[in-house]
Amino acid sequence: MFENKENRTELEELGEFGLIKHLAQSVVLKNAETIKGIGDDATVIDTSGKILVVTTDMLVEGIHFDLTFSPLKHLGYKAVVVNLSDVYAMNAIPKQIVVALGLSNRFSLEAVEELYEGINLACEKYGVDLVGGDTTTSRSGLIISVTGIGFADKKEDIVYRNSAKATDLICVSGDLGAAYLGLQLLNREKKIFLVNPGVQPELSGYDYLLERQLKPEARKDIIEQLKSSGIKPTSMIDISDGLSSELFHICTQSQVGCQVYEDKIPVDIKTGELADEFNLSPIVCALSGGEDYELLFTVSIHDFEKIKLLQDVHVIGHITDEASGLMMIDKAGTAIQLKAQGWDAFNTNHN
Amino acid sequence: MFENKENRTELEELGEFGLIKHLAQSVVLKNAETIKGIGDDATVIDTSGKILVVTTDMLVEGIHFDLTFSPLKHLGYKAVVVNLSDVYAMNAIPKQIVVALGLSNRFSLEAVEELYEGINLACEKYGVDLVGGDTTTSRSGLIISVTGIGFADKKEDIVYRNSAKATDLICVSGDLGAAYLGLQLLNREKKIFLVNPGVQPELSGYDYLLERQLKPEARKDIIEQLKSSGIKPTSMIDISDGLSSELFHICTQSQVGCQVYEDKIPVDIKTGELADEFNLSPIVCALSGGEDYELLFTVSIHDFEKIKLLQDVHVIGHITDEASGLMMIDKAGTAIQLKAQGWDAFNTNHN
Repeated sequence: MFENKENRTELEELGEFGLIKHLAQSVVLKNAETIKGIGDDATVIDTSGKILVVTTDMLVEGIHFDLTFSPLKHLGYKAVVVNLSDVYAMNAIPKQIVVALGLSNRFSLEAVEELYEGINLACEKYGVDLVGGDTTTSRSGLIISVTGIGFADKKEDIVYRNSAKATDLICVSGDLGAAYLGLQLLNREKKIFLVNPGVQPELSGYDYLLERQLKPEARKDIIEQLKSSGIKPTSMIDISDGLSSELFHICTQSQVGCQVYEDKIPVDIKTGELADEFNLSPIVCALSGGEDYELLFTVSIHDFEKIKLLQDVHVIGHITDEASGLMMIDKAGTAIQLKAQGWDAFNTNHN
Repeated sequence: MFENKENRTELEELGEFGLIKHLAQSVVLKNAETIKGIGDDATVIDTSGKILVVTTDMLVEGIHFDLTFSPLKHLGYKAVVVNLSDVYAMNAIPKQIVVALGLSNRFSLEAVEELYEGINLACEKYGVDLVGGDTTTSRSGLIISVTGIGFADKKEDIVYRNSAKATDLICVSGDLGAAYLGLQLLNREKKIFLVNPGVQPELSGYDYLLERQLKPEARKDIIEQLKSSGIKPTSMIDISDGLSSELFHICTQSQVGCQVYEDKIPVDIKTGELADEFNLSPIVCALSGGEDYELLFTVSIHDFEKIKLLQDVHVIGHITDEASGLMMIDKAGTAIQLKAQGWDAFNTNHN
């Protein structure tokens, strides 16, 4: 009782990825049905029937969301979508979610209903069943923990992070950096509001960026397109921490390098405009902003003709050998080394 | 932005069970594979192979545990066990868990390692794989959200809460009330310690009660015994909120009543002694204490001879028709109506 530990290593020293890697070392898998444990977007389990995919995300008030500007309905929607995005990133189809909620007495029934409206709306849109959960008290704000359950027909359908090969093409869906700039905008308006509550927030004209931040979508359509085109990616991950960080995961786990081209990385015109306003480089927002929930995947070079026909998919570069490292060729033709920027959960408040 | 809602219904007005019921009304199931959604110990999903069972629990510091007296290793162990208990209560075998952690910077790497030691120990003991999770920052202490994944060979093996029939025997494993009294003891010693930090806590002689509170076990052995004896319970639930509350769940969902006998309800001698010291009725601790993680189940009266042979299983009464209500016959032979006391998550701090 009431002991103090002598040794103390701060979590900041490891960062989120370091901590996960460290903890994973002590994990020993015992069941033959466990195909994939820690280390991808989701877990993979053999059910002697379909292949089960499970993923979990915890969203904490004040860390992952700010209720000053995030409507509860949007928040419920986003909490589900973020989770489904991980299931799609395994090339699986999400079918069920369970939701654990921690609620402080600051929340009324009407507030919880609003949150559930968003949860149910996302379930509706993505054809997913809300099948259970846990509701409990929290002393400090809202905690939402969503576990997503999905299936693939067979083991061979699952796409991991560790199977990219040199010469594979690197593809990304949609556009990047918008969610991050949406957040910058909301934070700016919040600051102005706190100083002068009479001033109405200046949000008009930024609908796209705000929606990307507050109510993102998961790329179910890309998974469907890939399937109907007969393309199986060689590796895949969803972009939650920024393109750099996800490229880093794929390359490290696949033991390869990559070369991407700045001018191929998709950035929406609105993202570019607002980046200018904030004096930020749009490409830095795309590389390190995060929360895009787009898919980053690699395909065999033999699928190039097929890939070109897909809607909203951009080839941004190719996989190289490990020794070549992670490189971006900028608009001037200079090779720049990419860093695994990502989100360091223990140093910064991501959003 | 920054709106205030006019209508406000306090969550206390509904309580935990009321809130879940209310929210469940808005849920529409879409997938044929979803066999059972909200409303039991776990979710049941058809995988075209084995039957999948999923359950989730969120533990929040200051609500579900107090790190003043709960060693992190025990806490990790308990967080897993509590979850596995729900899987066993479906008559399924847990195989995997995913763990989402919210950590404030108060926690060092060594602290997280200690927590994981307990998590891994429970996985080892119950033959479960830790297959994934999420680690994130929390502004206020520790949050542990565990999702348990289990399997049954076929649909017919699953045991729900809603299938008890009149004349069925009511059985309970182990003994009840001990975990609650263990908590009372820890709280008393904490208070003394806070007033006078020089005084050493008086915990010797109470090992059993402390272990029941700090490091409970899930009744895997009971599920194994039932299987090897060829008994399939007609309904089952794990005792997390006290016997009364669980009887209420089974009876309400099965549309039956029950009659249990005070003198048949198993209470350990140490529980009785400490209850006396605290001026509490041992039977009230058993009925409303909670956190026993024993199994409450019903079996057909035809299984009476088989049930008698099981280790650590006690027949405490029988199921009646709905009109008879939930009754306990006390030691004096008086019939007392049982209330769904349970744990009201929004009114009290359970532990």
